[in-house]
Amino acid sequence: MSTPSLLILPGDGIGPEVMAEVVKIIDWYGDKRGLKFDVSHDLVGGAAYDKHGTPLHDDTMARAQKADAVLLGAVGGPKYDVLDFSVKPERGLLRLRKEMDLYANLRPAQCFDALADFSSLKKDVVAGLDIMIVRELTSGIYFGEPRGIFKEGNERVGVNTQRYTESEIARVARSAFELARRRGNKVCSMEKANVMESGILWRDVVTEIHQAEYADVELSHMYADAGAMQLCRWPKQFDVIVTDNLFGDLLSDAAAMLTGSLGMLPSASLGAPMENGRPKALYEPVHGSAPDIAGQGKANPIACVLSFAMALRYSFDQGDEATRLENAIEKVLADGARTADLLGEDGVTPLSTSQMGDAIVAAL
Amino acid sequence: MSTPSLLILPGDGIGPEVMAEVVKIIDWYGDKRGLKFDVSHDLVGGAAYDKHGTPLHDDTMARAQKADAVLLGAVGGPKYDVLDFSVKPERGLLRLRKEMDLYANLRPAQCFDALADFSSLKKDVVAGLDIMIVRELTSGIYFGEPRGIFKEGNERVGVNTQRYTESEIARVARSAFELARRRGNKVCSMEKANVMESGILWRDVVTEIHQAEYADVELSHMYADAGAMQLCRWPKQFDVIVTDNLFGDLLSDAAAMLTGSLGMLPSASLGAPMENGRPKALYEPVHGSAPDIAGQGKANPIACVLSFAMALRYSFDQGDEATRLENAIEKVLADGARTADLLGEDGVTPLSTSQMGDAIVAAL
Ligand SMILES: CC(C)[C@H](C(=O)O)[C@@H](O)C(=O)O
Ligand SMILES: CC(C)[C@H](C(=O)O)[C@@H](O)C(=O)O
Repeated sequence: MSTPSLLILPGDGIGPEVMAEVVKIIDWYGDKRGLKFDVSHDLVGGAAYDKHGTPLHDDTMARAQKADAVLLGAVGGPKYDVLDFSVKPERGLLRLRKEMDLYANLRPAQCFDALADFSSLKKDVVAGLDIMIVRELTSGIYFGEPRGIFKEGNERVGVNTQRYTESEIARVARSAFELARRRGNKVCSMEKANVMESGILWRDVVTEIHQAEYADVELSHMYADAGAMQLCRWPKQFDVIVTDNLFGDLLSDAAAMLTGSLGMLPSASLGAPMENGRPKALYEPVHGSAPDIAGQGKANPIACVLSFAMALRYSFDQGDEATRLENAIEKVLADGARTADLLGEDGVTPLSTSQMGDAIVAAL
Repeated sequence: MSTPSLLILPGDGIGPEVMAEVVKIIDWYGDKRGLKFDVSHDLVGGAAYDKHGTPLHDDTMARAQKADAVLLGAVGGPKYDVLDFSVKPERGLLRLRKEMDLYANLRPAQCFDALADFSSLKKDVVAGLDIMIVRELTSGIYFGEPRGIFKEGNERVGVNTQRYTESEIARVARSAFELARRRGNKVCSMEKANVMESGILWRDVVTEIHQAEYADVELSHMYADAGAMQLCRWPKQFDVIVTDNLFGDLLSDAAAMLTGSLGMLPSASLGAPMENGRPKALYEPVHGSAPDIAGQGKANPIACVLSFAMALRYSFDQGDEATRLENAIEKVLADGARTADLLGEDGVTPLSTSQMGDAIVAAL
């Protein structure tokens, strides 16, 4: 098999600095474990807009389609707030998700033991937490038509459309059930079937797929508002959560916070298998571009490094190597290494972004 | 002025039992404080469906339109899951909100000192918390057309429409700014302007109203996903939050949980002033009908009693009497009275629903 290709899109804000640490890890795997990748870099988001006047150049899109996996840093920043909606940095990311058809966004919320004290939630509520949110990523209100701001009489009207087809729901439900089988064997599906017809269809299709193909997995349903509440109250009741694009956006951010810092959370966005059997895939930290701390060496690279671990697991069938990397991070944290976002009140001096990257390489 | 009218709609599940405690409080105000109300009862939700085949009879709707204030318990239950969407219990509540045009839903999230230990969040994160979520309640994806489940080829498609007009946004923004002036003078507006055009219009209109009419109030904007996260991380950063119907549904449930129990949280849904100057108004606890504990005397009546306190404040201009009632509840809790939902691990025997009601009356 030829060397697998990795397309790196650092993006904006802290994206480049956290990605620089991932590159150190990739190099380590090439040198020490014989896992070589054919790495190339390109632009996305504001960085792409600055150079090309578009948040994602067609050439970059084409390279992403061909890559064995894409690693993305983050997009966006206040500098781009004035841009027209159609060329905002976020559109670059959304185009990647849509055109690569990355329908299953996996967002694990795991609490590292060493950080259990750091959450705003009580230690017993979050210690040992290990849940997986599967968010539908290519449809729903993010992409539905009609959309826009229209004039009606002398008023403006803002419109977006939530739209889900049966097959869109079915395929992401399957992803969730498959994952559950390899974990705690439980899926909780969240929607607002009590007020939205699209939620009724969601519930019906998830139930049908369950009955026909995954009756061995335990399935429950919850309204998304109750879900938000239960995530704050007793998150350990969940194993896999499956939900739509917009609910997934909010619920996964809330879940992320449970673990203490957004600087810790990776994600994988997976599509259908390519010819070589690998799924189309993009990996990115859940955190944003954090323009307020960009370029200062304060950012926590762990979310981005853990995203690469997900790439090892889901794109390259290297689950053991992924676990090795996760264990190295666990060890570094247990030894007390902290970036600025992870500091409590105990007066530890924080590591810089690059010191944290070096510590992880050393622990490997 | 004639005796003000109160229409009581206990609804389903624990609705009737918590409402029975509110009636005790109403009677106390009549007897002891000379605040008389002309109280009548009617059906809503599953209870109305059982009797009339509709979750809200037209006569009830007409009475609600005329009432000086409506007090609602809760609607829904598994028994009604099989019903067609159009006659589900929730449709009764949604019809009340829509036809009374109750566009501003006020959901305070306050943490009582006596309960600060009870939250799943750390005590310092929630002690003294006092935020107000203003949720738009009559528009957005709850009511937008087209909606439904359609057949396309041989697939079903679920559709809902998010739709906001300028004036719908403007009026709820004004409600939020007005409230902020009487509180901490800060408003944070939440949407997803980075992915939804309706969010862009929301942000623009809130900003315009702010500049033109409320420049003295501090305004900030946050994406709703970041908002969900910040509510879990450091909720005290907020004073008033203003957001749309769907985001408000999720965010207010998450915020509710911060305070320790959903059994504590009231809400007011306000519309335009009637001829007598009072706003159209419906008051209801944030919690649902909790069918699993219904009829067992386990429910916490405080959310419903606090909803009546909001009625005293917002409909009847009796802010001092509202505070009296809130203080009585504070005292009862400080004295250690707890319903089953509020029990920690210290082996206190819980009060029944009606014992809690009696304790509040005694404290008054
Ligand atoms: C940056 C933004 C477009 C994105 C989203 O809303 O999906 C982000 O919040 C996320 O969750 O990945
Ligand atoms: C019961 C339901 C229709 C309702 C809603 O979604 O608005 C409830 O969750 C609420 O928040 O009042």
